[in-house]
Amino acid sequence: MNYSSAFIPTLREVPADAVIASHRLMFRAGMLRKLANGLFAYLPLGFRSFRKVERIIREEMDAIGALEIKPTVVVPGELWKESGRWDAMGEEMLRAKNRLGGDFVISPTAEEAFTAIVRDELSSYRQLPLTLYQINTKYRDEIRPRYGVMRGREFVMKDAYSWHGDDESLDKTYRTMGEAYRRIFKRCGLTVISVTADSGAMGGSGSEEFMVESEIGDNTLILCRRCDYAANVEKAGCKPDFIPRPSPDCARSAAAETAPYEKIDTPAVKTIDALCAFIKNGDGSAASAREFIKTLIYRAVNVEMDLSAAPGCARLERKNAAEGANGGAVYPEAFFAVAIRGDLDVNEAKLAAALKAGGVGLASDSDVVRLTGAPVGFAGPVGLDALPVILDHSVTGMNDAITGALAKDLHYRHVAYGRDFEGWMIEDLRTVKAGDRCPLCGGELYEKKGNELGHIFKLGYKYTRSMRVSYLDEHGKSCVPTMGSYGIGLDRTLASIIEEHHDDAGIVWPMSVAPYHVIIVPIKYGGNVKILADSLAAELEARGVEVLLDDRDERPGVKFKDADLIGIPCRLVVSEKNLEGVPKVELKRRGETESRLIEAAKAADELAAIVQA
Amino acid sequence: MNYSSAFIPTLREVPADAVIASHRLMFRAGMLRKLANGLFAYLPLGFRSFRKVERIIREEMDAIGALEIKPTVVVPGELWKESGRWDAMGEEMLRAKNRLGGDFVISPTAEEAFTAIVRDELSSYRQLPLTLYQINTKYRDEIRPRYGVMRGREFVMKDAYSWHGDDESLDKTYRTMGEAYRRIFKRCGLTVISVTADSGAMGGSGSEEFMVESEIGDNTLILCRRCDYAANVEKAGCKPDFIPRPSPDCARSAAAETAPYEKIDTPAVKTIDALCAFIKNGDGSAASAREFIKTLIYRAVNVEMDLSAAPGCARLERKNAAEGANGGAVYPEAFFAVAIRGDLDVNEAKLAAALKAGGVGLASDSDVVRLTGAPVGFAGPVGLDALPVILDHSVTGMNDAITGALAKDLHYRHVAYGRDFEGWMIEDLRTVKAGDRCPLCGGELYEKKGNELGHIFKLGYKYTRSMRVSYLDEHGKSCVPTMGSYGIGLDRTLASIIEEHHDDAGIVWPMSVAPYHVIIVPIKYGGNVKILADSLAAELEARGVEVLLDDRDERPGVKFKDADLIGIPCRLVVSEKNLEGVPKVELKRRGETESRLIEAAKAADELAAIVQA
Repeated sequence: MNYSSAFIPTLREVPADAVIASHRLMFRAGMLRKLANGLFAYLPLGFRSFRKVERIIREEMDAIGALEIKPTVVVPGELWKESGRWDAMGEEMLRAKNRLGGDFVISPTAEEAFTAIVRDELSSYRQLPLTLYQINTKYRDEIRPRYGVMRGREFVMKDAYSWHGDDESLDKTYRTMGEAYRRIFKRCGLTVISVTADSGAMGGSGSEEFMVESEIGDNTLILCRRCDYAANVEKAGCKPDFIPRPSPDCARSAAAETAPYEKIDTPAVKTIDALCAFIKNGDGSAASAREFIKTLIYRAVNVEMDLSAAPGCARLERKNAAEGANGGAVYPEAFFAVAIRGDLDVNEAKLAAALKAGGVGLASDSDVVRLTGAPVGFAGPVGLDALPVILDHSVTGMNDAITGALAKDLHYRHVAYGRDFEGWMIEDLRTVKAGDRCPLCGGELYEKKGNELGHIFKLGYKYTRSMRVSYLDEHGKSCVPTMGSYGIGLDRTLASIIEEHHDDAGIVWPMSVAPYHVIIVPIKYGGNVKILADSLAAELEARGVEVLLDDRDERPGVKFKDADLIGIPCRLVVSEKNLEGVPKVELKRRGETESRLIEAAKAADELAAIVQA
Repeated sequence: MNYSSAFIPTLREVPADAVIASHRLMFRAGMLRKLANGLFAYLPLGFRSFRKVERIIREEMDAIGALEIKPTVVVPGELWKESGRWDAMGEEMLRAKNRLGGDFVISPTAEEAFTAIVRDELSSYRQLPLTLYQINTKYRDEIRPRYGVMRGREFVMKDAYSWHGDDESLDKTYRTMGEAYRRIFKRCGLTVISVTADSGAMGGSGSEEFMVESEIGDNTLILCRRCDYAANVEKAGCKPDFIPRPSPDCARSAAAETAPYEKIDTPAVKTIDALCAFIKNGDGSAASAREFIKTLIYRAVNVEMDLSAAPGCARLERKNAAEGANGGAVYPEAFFAVAIRGDLDVNEAKLAAALKAGGVGLASDSDVVRLTGAPVGFAGPVGLDALPVILDHSVTGMNDAITGALAKDLHYRHVAYGRDFEGWMIEDLRTVKAGDRCPLCGGELYEKKGNELGHIFKLGYKYTRSMRVSYLDEHGKSCVPTMGSYGIGLDRTLASIIEEHHDDAGIVWPMSVAPYHVIIVPIKYGGNVKILADSLAAELEARGVEVLLDDRDERPGVKFKDADLIGIPCRLVVSEKNLEGVPKVELKRRGETESRLIEAAKAADELAAIVQA
């Protein structure tokens, strides 16, 4: 391909709104242009690399037996009403009414469409397991699209879905998919951090996210300096930094030395910080937040956990809707007290997971008054029986703590777990922070910002139950299959490759996804230089090497700058001065600083070997 | 690929709403399923063929130097407002409002998006000509989708657009594109009828449609039995079946023998049929419609033709909007009388083209009264001067005609063209019918129904003017480029291949687009049969042959029926009975009735040769 015919409008200036390298470079290299906020058009150069990422993903999907299909991008709203996500998706889902008034959705994801297709065709266990995928347009109406295609509104996703007769089969496909994802990212030249939902110590994992480090990442990752533990902060665990008390009995005996708890007046002191300042230690210094038990009242919705025996829940009604993650009955609303050491924060994602709840959030002030008998700021676990009390593990290590006393302007001190209160549940609910200890090896944890490129996930029965999918097993019994879902964002993957592979001069493409393998730069495209450049291009193309020939009437400096900017892995300079005697050409790899002269007659062989390496 | 893992849910029964072969067979062969009215999902087998059509198109586009890009499917409504099509597209265009209230469009076509991209990047004549294309999702909210993917709502289209500095360059790309289209359809095994907008006799053509014959086609084609003349009925011409009078003078002298025209009473007789019955010939038989001049009053909108000297148009105002096809000023509304021989029909597309109008339609009754002084049914060209009179060529052959007399219940007879009236314009406006004569060779014309698969079209300046695209020419002068557009519907192309290649048993795929090249059918998949079948599959796949191995535990009859239904071009039967001595396998081509035994050891070579032929 001649450069002059390739429509590569490179830019010297940087677009004003381009904050990150990939956004800047995709624009500057003439790969991408903006159609509207969050909507981008790939120009020819960008689309070549895009298609290579697509091909790598397709090859790896096909290799593990996933079958490609093509549902529509515009899907009937009915399917989303069936699954219950029509309301749940909110404004991020772009909807349209057709001329007959029917509701349609511009697919943000395709669990519903795939499930609808499989539902109609699945009859026998012999058809399972089944994995289908598509590489297709998705739309999410991001409220604040930015960072170019890293967080655009329209994007292309490879999304796969699998159906299984049992958990073992789902496990197997899930693992195979994870391996395929690792191969995909490796072939793209990406260093990904694999993040599992729960710590490896807890056995089988239900979800794995493939992250790349990014200063503008929308995920916080918790990583271990010593082992390869990695988790999303929403799910990260850590080694307790206290003496855990596995049972109330054990805790009780540890509290034997502690004085009985007693009331202290704390007029208008409601926050931990204010309490620390108010309650002096013996030496007059402020008390530490570690000495307090913070007690927060949460409101949870669509709780699937059985609360029939939980304190204060006897009259709660269970709704038989399919709102639960596993299609079970749920409590539409329930309240919980969560007690945690004063210096720690409650991780709401962990709390929701522990309760199998659709969501959790802090209760309103009036609910707090109703349930604790005191205004916000004076809740505590001692004597609290209007609702279930959930203890973070940290509280079980405390035997001389300060807590709210369930009355305005009053706290207790000398409170001991096991002796003065127990919990209805004891869970790991703390938000892990840099400096905490790794749950696997005890090493120091640190934080990174990450962007999610891929996610594999055991969905279970959520869609197959709500959308009534079934098949007959070996014995002719009707069964509901379990399901997995597996996504990769192509645009984000491409942008992340640039994030990882660039320097001050431009992109440094890995060979596998480079728009062209070789750029031939003739110093003055004419005469013998042109003859050699043309014949090299033809020779290389005959060997399957993709060549961009810079036939433009530009100064060498301009050509070199563009070659570096667009990041072609190999540069071949053809210049009059090297044609005397045995003709030579100058080869430079994009990542290297030195070029070397090679015989023109051997150049095609040598380059083909580099490209195929 | 093993059949049991390929998810090919074939059906014995025919879907109730499937009228045409491709719709029936795509469902029965497990290629396609319906998600909603007009929305279809390709299953794995269907998508394999779909991708082959896509690859053929992409190869041919790349081969002519068209560059692939990827704009979004959801595009900002602003672009459509700029081009003026936001209102013009009507309800067929699916629109959505995003969460911020912005207008968006699910692309029905992409002139606007491509023009917007090029507008921002085009600066110099050196960048021209430029041809960009995409293969991407389109959506048109068909009011009555049917015939499967032949007329669905969401579909995939290859749409290309080109920009040029002059007409010669546009001509060249237009011709090259036409050649590429012919190669594409040939490679797909399709017999297409190429239909040009105007007869070849008129020189350069501005549009070419690629049609396939189809009983349910939405186009009527006019074809010649003798030469290869082909035209859409909307544009078809024909040889006059009368003595044309090129000039009024010539006509006048031909009318010398005719008696002067005179009034006849025709109380309440308003239609040609009624007139024929009312006006008896000498022998008492009804008059023929060929003896009448039918005069119709049309209202035209956005007329670009200059009407400053036309009768009755002196006070018409010209609007300087960019509504005209060439971006010129237009008359928002104008009226015309069209006179045509009584047995012929006016072709409104021809009339609109002759007037360079945005559209034409019959005038309202009140407009007819105002302009002709008589109710509907009594218009005629004699004495009609309130509006321009346009004569179809047929009228110039008439010198003893009956016409309306511009008064209620009155007609004239003995009316002669040239002597009694002339026309402001004389044009070919008749709708051609089967039985008319070919405009090129005089052969008999016949009609066919056709479906349009592709369309190449010289757009001219419509979008580049309205969207303000410009570049600097060699002399530094700012110029507007001219533009072409070129589309192919992929889904329709695939369905048309099936329409042309099927028999009672199922699809008969051309090799180029077959989902698999070879199906291996083991008669009982086990023991030596399995060993040979597996090794043949491996050998073939190593040679690049795509193999479907029917590993199912089904009776041979079921396997043969499915193999025929899904239409794999070569069938290889491996059976115990042929394994004694020199092992043999049975080869049958899908289109043939006889199979033959070939040596198993040579089968892979022989099949590879067939596939690559």
